[in-house]
Amino acid sequence: MGAHPHGDGKMTDVRTMGFTDVRATNLAVVLRHLRTNGPSSRAAIAASTGLNKATVSSLTSDLIDQRLLRETGASGNRIGRPGTALTLDGSAFAAIGLQVAADRITALAVDFAGDQLLLWHRAFTSPPEAAGPGRAISAIIALAQRAATRVRQQGRSVLGLTIAVPGLVDDRGMVRLSPALGWSDVDLRGPVAGSLRQPDLVVTVSHQAILAALAERQRAALAEDNLVVVTGAAGIEAGIVVDGRPLHGARGFTGQIGRLTLGPAGSPTLHDLAGIEPLARRALPGFDPESLTDLGPSVEQISVLARSGDAGVLAALRDTGRHLGQGLAILANLADPSVIVLGDHYATLAEWLIPPAEAELAGHTPAPGGVRVVASELGLHAAALGGALSHLDRVDHGRSIPVTA
Amino acid sequence: MGAHPHGDGKMTDVRTMGFTDVRATNLAVVLRHLRTNGPSSRAAIAASTGLNKATVSSLTSDLIDQRLLRETGASGNRIGRPGTALTLDGSAFAAIGLQVAADRITALAVDFAGDQLLLWHRAFTSPPEAAGPGRAISAIIALAQRAATRVRQQGRSVLGLTIAVPGLVDDRGMVRLSPALGWSDVDLRGPVAGSLRQPDLVVTVSHQAILAALAERQRAALAEDNLVVVTGAAGIEAGIVVDGRPLHGARGFTGQIGRLTLGPAGSPTLHDLAGIEPLARRALPGFDPESLTDLGPSVEQISVLARSGDAGVLAALRDTGRHLGQGLAILANLADPSVIVLGDHYATLAEWLIPPAEAELAGHTPAPGGVRVVASELGLHAAALGGALSHLDRVDHGRSIPVTA
Repeated sequence: MGAHPHGDGKMTDVRTMGFTDVRATNLAVVLRHLRTNGPSSRAAIAASTGLNKATVSSLTSDLIDQRLLRETGASGNRIGRPGTALTLDGSAFAAIGLQVAADRITALAVDFAGDQLLLWHRAFTSPPEAAGPGRAISAIIALAQRAATRVRQQGRSVLGLTIAVPGLVDDRGMVRLSPALGWSDVDLRGPVAGSLRQPDLVVTVSHQAILAALAERQRAALAEDNLVVVTGAAGIEAGIVVDGRPLHGARGFTGQIGRLTLGPAGSPTLHDLAGIEPLARRALPGFDPESLTDLGPSVEQISVLARSGDAGVLAALRDTGRHLGQGLAILANLADPSVIVLGDHYATLAEWLIPPAEAELAGHTPAPGGVRVVASELGLHAAALGGALSHLDRVDHGRSIPVTA
Repeated sequence: MGAHPHGDGKMTDVRTMGFTDVRATNLAVVLRHLRTNGPSSRAAIAASTGLNKATVSSLTSDLIDQRLLRETGASGNRIGRPGTALTLDGSAFAAIGLQVAADRITALAVDFAGDQLLLWHRAFTSPPEAAGPGRAISAIIALAQRAATRVRQQGRSVLGLTIAVPGLVDDRGMVRLSPALGWSDVDLRGPVAGSLRQPDLVVTVSHQAILAALAERQRAALAEDNLVVVTGAAGIEAGIVVDGRPLHGARGFTGQIGRLTLGPAGSPTLHDLAGIEPLARRALPGFDPESLTDLGPSVEQISVLARSGDAGVLAALRDTGRHLGQGLAILANLADPSVIVLGDHYATLAEWLIPPAEAELAGHTPAPGGVRVVASELGLHAAALGGALSHLDRVDHGRSIPVTA
């Protein structure tokens, strides 16, 4: 977290600049260059983007005025004489991601340079469905307000806030169905947006696995156009990116991999065969899903037992990994990813799940070349990170250039 | 087929015009307007596209010179006084689609206005794998040459030729694996392109289900951004369009739905449970897949028996439909289409397959709203049509504006 090096406590407004489309496009080109390549001189930006030097000077001057860029002492460009380098400026703007799971809410904020400003976890039990989502929404609002207040106290304006939820989320941010949370037809966006007292603040609600995929793609090794993240938590979901685009679908209801089955209704689903809770039930004799508030400790316990060589736990992990691999094979045969990332609790258990999953995958996919299966390195808050990054991405693509007051 | 009303026998070359990007984009806007809306006056084009009238006059003048548009007598615009309407001109250019299946090759050509110029079927048995693909390629080349010659004799230049194949086709048009054809690592594009003696002719090889999806989306009722075509032939494959784009994937290997299974390697696949050949085996006592050259007559026989009320055949169809519905549910849960089209031989049997498939689909998809399941109306050559249309689409999107010599 840490104090911000450039904050001057002055509040800034987030408004869209009145630039022409071409200018917004070019500003975005400069931002994306710096996001991808790190600190660069004006000459290096011109050489790499094809914009002429005068245009780059004018664009970067505007971006410095808007506190989206700042000058650093030395150029990152090693060729030629050292010049003044430009880098993304994190001092004026930040973005917030909230991640709602069955057992916790996470808040994460990053500044415009992508540096993490805060990461908070809050224990949370989604109330029984009959009680309605009211208390859960209150808890989410409280955390959102606290995160926004903290960011503003540091002198930054909030570019946007995205809430990641498991389940089916429609285009308007309505949670249509979330078995993990026990919700159906819950308007989460409206109450949260209303509580933040900044009418122009962009608040969105999105599918957690899609946001996790967005976060994973920021990792250099996973900057792939065809990538799937499979998140193992209270349910199993997939964030599917094909040809560089996350699959959204007719209503936003993609990646519901936990429900996969090839049998009549009532047959075991992929979740029954490869879910985290069914694994815990099998691997941990004392496991009681009814009293469950947090899967994390059970998953830790499974990993400790596996490391100690517990034969029963290892067999349960092998079985889960095999079935998971059958699910991954379905994804591979339909979407042809080059890499599949195991996220959320699957990442903790990846060393035991990946070998049997890969063997099964190879047996079910005839395609030459195959697909890599890797563990997420982003922990249990990948979707919160993806939610925050989505707002930087919006700026980087010229869809909204914030302006300081 | 029929003689062409405007052909003058003069040969034209297909070259890309030396237009700037902006001009190519605007030319494409005009073409797309006419493709979607039918004959329109210059004023109507200007009003609908936002281009000013002088620009529209200049663009349409170029397009008339290039024989991509022509004037018709009366305007299709009913408002205001009748003016001269413009319509797409089919006289100078055509595109060819070839569809290779296990039991036949189909050639189809359309002119630039989208009117069908020829549709030929040729019986064909893919030689046993050990014999190699040589004879099959020769048969494909012969049909491609015949179609190109016919089109040219009618005075049209060939914009491009696309070959639709079942199985895994990579980015360079190499057929990496096609169980239906018994092929692996077959270069189909090279030999066909070489045989057509027109070096600038665009020849592509693509996945048949994706091309079928492209063709279905031209039907007004199916102009959906989220659509899946499931083709039942020697195998089962899906052409998946999400958010307006066909899924291509890391290597072009999407939609391999026939291989789906949720069990260890060797478990029944969706093809085993819901394929056309397993259905025929069950429904027709005398069916001998070894002597199979064409599934068509068996499918016809199944439909005749079903219509006559044959209980065994109806039970086999119900069972196939149920399993097919389980496969469609997987597609629905992963890709969230608004419509699923049953294509190829499934279309012939759709009236018996759709009710049990829809019931199964509803039981497996929790998403509110659901998905329509419809039968293809494009017959067994949807992929050939999609292959031909893909070249008109290329022109309509300004990626290649042909120029008459």
